[in-house]
Amino acid sequence: MSAELLRVVYHLAVEPARAEARAEALAREQTVEVPRAVVRDPVVRGEALGRVEALAPGPEGGFLATLAYPTGATGLEPAQALNVVFGNSSLHADVRCLDLEPGPELAAALGGPRFGIAGLRAATGVSGRPLTCTAIKPMGLSTAALAALAGTFARAGLDVVKDDHGLADQAWSPFRERVAACLAAVARAADETGHETVYVPNLIGAPERLRDAQRFAEDAGARAVMASPMLVGLPAFWELCRRSSVPVLAHPAFAGALRFAPEALFGKLFRLFGADASIFVSFGSRFAQGEESCRAIARALRGPWGALRPALPVPAGGIEVASAAKVVEFYGEDAMLLVGGDLQLEADGVLERSREFVRSVRAAAAARVSAVAART
Amino acid sequence: MSAELLRVVYHLAVEPARAEARAEALAREQTVEVPRAVVRDPVVRGEALGRVEALAPGPEGGFLATLAYPTGATGLEPAQALNVVFGNSSLHADVRCLDLEPGPELAAALGGPRFGIAGLRAATGVSGRPLTCTAIKPMGLSTAALAALAGTFARAGLDVVKDDHGLADQAWSPFRERVAACLAAVARAADETGHETVYVPNLIGAPERLRDAQRFAEDAGARAVMASPMLVGLPAFWELCRRSSVPVLAHPAFAGALRFAPEALFGKLFRLFGADASIFVSFGSRFAQGEESCRAIARALRGPWGALRPALPVPAGGIEVASAAKVVEFYGEDAMLLVGGDLQLEADGVLERSREFVRSVRAAAAARVSAVAART
Repeated sequence: MSAELLRVVYHLAVEPARAEARAEALAREQTVEVPRAVVRDPVVRGEALGRVEALAPGPEGGFLATLAYPTGATGLEPAQALNVVFGNSSLHADVRCLDLEPGPELAAALGGPRFGIAGLRAATGVSGRPLTCTAIKPMGLSTAALAALAGTFARAGLDVVKDDHGLADQAWSPFRERVAACLAAVARAADETGHETVYVPNLIGAPERLRDAQRFAEDAGARAVMASPMLVGLPAFWELCRRSSVPVLAHPAFAGALRFAPEALFGKLFRLFGADASIFVSFGSRFAQGEESCRAIARALRGPWGALRPALPVPAGGIEVASAAKVVEFYGEDAMLLVGGDLQLEADGVLERSREFVRSVRAAAAARVSAVAART
Repeated sequence: MSAELLRVVYHLAVEPARAEARAEALAREQTVEVPRAVVRDPVVRGEALGRVEALAPGPEGGFLATLAYPTGATGLEPAQALNVVFGNSSLHADVRCLDLEPGPELAAALGGPRFGIAGLRAATGVSGRPLTCTAIKPMGLSTAALAALAGTFARAGLDVVKDDHGLADQAWSPFRERVAACLAAVARAADETGHETVYVPNLIGAPERLRDAQRFAEDAGARAVMASPMLVGLPAFWELCRRSSVPVLAHPAFAGALRFAPEALFGKLFRLFGADASIFVSFGSRFAQGEESCRAIARALRGPWGALRPALPVPAGGIEVASAAKVVEFYGEDAMLLVGGDLQLEADGVLERSREFVRSVRAAAAARVSAVAART
């Protein structure tokens, strides 16, 4: 196992007295995700567990913590690398991710830009000054109108004319039709003026569609493409970059999704996209989430919603065996209780504690049924 | 074109006097993304433009705005649907997405849970009470140790035993080896106790790897799987759900990524994942972003970073032709200025205004070079 480290700097909004314990908890959260007592195995402790490398008061309050994670925890894979950088901790309101340093091994595995600034200068033929760029829009225009706009911008001497990030594959201007027409429009302008403008199609969609769009754009002769990493998903974006034969522009859309209300994100959006069960941090866990918000998430997952099937709420995030009955009482029968590290607190007691959890849920469910029967 | 509407409710942190204009700007931001004066085409105005359907003071201050977007703007496609719901607006600090209602057409296109609660009850054989669930962990344990743990939980009578979301395809316990061993362990426990426990593998990775993992898990006999929608990307998650033959659990990791500092997200993470150029909202735009933050993003994109190629900063978000020179002065030559709606303010003046933009950037770049030469 490699001894290389991925370093991430976080801001912790904590009081001085709690800073050290908070940073140490963060190191566990992002790797082993169990209480300290459960970190028994020497390989786990020596090779998997993150550690706090530096901790100092921040210039504007709170603390800056530099955490070092074993590169092996990422599996040298993009989605899992994200997970280690800011998976669970993104859900902790007191943590903010400030910086990261992947180390040579992870950097090589992810690879970064394949073309970079030099590739964009080569594609546009521009050196020694900033490039100029605009977007064809708005959505709703026909392909002919968008292509005419691209031609106008090209004749004006713009270096790059890109699709607006909202131009997808809508009926107003289907993707393939638009790409072909805009490439032709900038080519015609180049014939007139001698200035070569690079038209950049917007690639968007679920992975299969994204791959098809990429192939089409490259075959059609696009000399650069654009995608929104947070919309298509960073790992899908990574895969797109890896196989791209032209430079890739990143668009920031959806990159501020935290301000999505939890009930809308975990309850509605996850259900709409197909989750059969949705795990979320429950009240009384190590994540701050109020009872009202939990109730709303459960309602959004289970309630009638057009023709969509109900999805199973899975309260989690540090529920303890001792509180299982209360959780059953709160969520009712259509739920799944997820208890993690609490079952493993004692190395020799896992079977017994797990049985206790099972018994506790069954008993609470039975009591609930009796209580309901007694009331009716 | 369909007349169906996608409705999204936002909280706007604005003063009463600005609420109506703010909501109207939001409706444009999420669809046509141009100044009001540029919305000239009747199809754009009638079929593409979002509109404010309701606006009322929020119970705790600010305003609640219900926006209605034409379903056609989503192309009935998951990534573009996200884009319409909260693409650019996720970057506006005064907007929070509270709720969404896709309407029957988009809901049918996305599809929601394929199995839902009934499917999970069928997979586990549990009815009339909540299900119990735990996770095998921590990362760093060998496959043998993790499978033993799964067996213990199964013998204790847990309904569902899932991989921790941090168990990926690390060397400590490779994915395929773990899935096979854990399925065998819960099967052995069922032989002993008669209680069938469902083991749920964690599927993680870029799209190709994700698809391989899904296929392997289903072929091996997994009766449910798990993935993190925000880590793998919501559209990749959607595709996974669509082709799944077993219920899918969603894990919330990375769902709070806004607290990622802009320079780390747009500068470092996007570059690390392969962006050759990264578009970000610049100072002086309609998005609040300070000069210091912009400088840091540009530095993170262009500066030396191990063996990674530099990526091109693309300041955007409402830069006007009039301020192009200032932007050139600020970012220097290795940048691309992205000016959008400002070029289209006058229907008949697009070519001339675009030429002005091109001239302005060239002149500012030349002046900058002269100034540097004069100083040295």
